[in-house]
Amino acid sequence: MAGRRVGCRPIVEDKWSLVIVEFLGHGPRRFTELRRGIDGVSQRMLTVTLRNLERDGILSRTVHNVMPPNISYALTPMGESLLDSFRPMMRWAAENVEQVEKARDEYDAR
Amino acid sequence: MAGRRVGCRPIVEDKWSLVIVEFLGHGPRRFTELRRGIDGVSQRMLTVTLRNLERDGILSRTVHNVMPPNISYALTPMGESLLDSFRPMMRWAAENVEQVEKARDEYDAR
Repeated sequence: MAGRRVGCRPIVEDKWSLVIVEFLGHGPRRFTELRRGIDGVSQRMLTVTLRNLERDGILSRTVHNVMPPNISYALTPMGESLLDSFRPMMRWAAENVEQVEKARDEYDAR
Repeated sequence: MAGRRVGCRPIVEDKWSLVIVEFLGHGPRRFTELRRGIDGVSQRMLTVTLRNLERDGILSRTVHNVMPPNISYALTPMGESLLDSFRPMMRWAAENVEQVEKARDEYDAR
């Protein structure tokens, strides 16, 4: 499998990667929990992004040999450090909602 | 023009928004400078993203009445605060390149 992604930019610039890492910040989750919990992600996009993030060393994938068998995903230490690195940006998004909405209203009223 | 973007998530989850904000962190730039300086962005994507960011209050657009007239874009104070909020993530990307590449090699060798 040729290296599809070069450098780290694809991780931090990929919407679903950040959303999944943020979601796994709450602890390990199964595929079905991720699919239900993340708004708007398709089955295929979730599958591809999880595989990319596992390949990048951002998350680990564990097969649980129970009946029925299931797979869970969890952040690795590097994944945790990625999550920490973009918490300020998520805080910015939460803190600036009103100012951004105000700017949009003013722009639309021009 | 109906409000196309709700809340701040579209800004922080949009690849080209972050790339443009990062580029304008070096100071005001004209459209042609942005087009030349940002790898892989199409004319249309740059136009749409610049308009969205102006509407969001992240950057300002100035028309210079010179011959020939030109337009420059600059970060607003809110744009500067957005840039500051995702610097840690960009640092993470720079600091973890080797570890991510190593993880990819190990994954591909499985």
